[in-house]
Amino acid sequence: MLASISALTIAGQSNSQKARIANEIRAVMTKQTADWNRGDIDGFMLGYWNSEKLLFVGSSGVTRGWRPTLDRYKKSYDSRAKMGTLTFSNLEIDVISRDAAVVLGRWSLARQKDTPNGTFTLIFRKFREGWRIVHDHTS
Amino acid sequence: MLASISALTIAGQSNSQKARIANEIRAVMTKQTADWNRGDIDGFMLGYWNSEKLLFVGSSGVTRGWRPTLDRYKKSYDSRAKMGTLTFSNLEIDVISRDAAVVLGRWSLARQKDTPNGTFTLIFRKFREGWRIVHDHTS
Repeated sequence: MLASISALTIAGQSNSQKARIANEIRAVMTKQTADWNRGDIDGFMLGYWNSEKLLFVGSSGVTRGWRPTLDRYKKSYDSRAKMGTLTFSNLEIDVISRDAAVVLGRWSLARQKDTPNGTFTLIFRKFREGWRIVHDHTS
Repeated sequence: MLASISALTIAGQSNSQKARIANEIRAVMTKQTADWNRGDIDGFMLGYWNSEKLLFVGSSGVTRGWRPTLDRYKKSYDSRAKMGTLTFSNLEIDVISRDAAVVLGRWSLARQKDTPNGTFTLIFRKFREGWRIVHDHTS
């Protein structure tokens, strides 16, 4: 029994484990959109790893660290109108191990005057506090 | 001894294992640039997972599969002049497990008339044939 658990752990996750992990990650992202759509960028940022090693790659290059990433969001979205209504869609969650997953998806902001949108690649890692984004490449 | 190896495998890689993996990945990318700079896109593409599940995210959205990614490269770079000289730089390799790693880096093409450049996030997985890119987000 112990041997079979070890083999499973080393070889990869079972489908039910992967489904559970995918649900946990979806819950983090659902909370992120709910926070964003309440105008709560600080709440939204709880989905990210609170570390100076957090990596955010966007149109202006690489931002390093949780605080600079928060500052970047607050600067880019300094009014409720600019924040608009955020939707994540077309999520494809690839569970790599029991503590790592890659998410491909689309983001879209519904705003009064425009609807900016794009594609993201997220690396999630599992921490004591739960699944957090450690690397976000958004375009 | 077996127990300690298992613990290591489950908990993560040792620094020497991570260094070895990083070197293997750097070798794949070095071969990619050498192939590109010889005008050999087919050779360059050997760094990618030969699968219909390969994901390439670029300025025009998501391309799925090895063959469509090859076709995209051949269409975008249909002359030696357009290919220019490719350089990868500022590589940061984050080894996630013994068969997965994330690479952040910069790409640059030195061409006669311009020097397009940007940032990429690569997910590498280890296969029987070696480390291959399974997901490329380039911006």
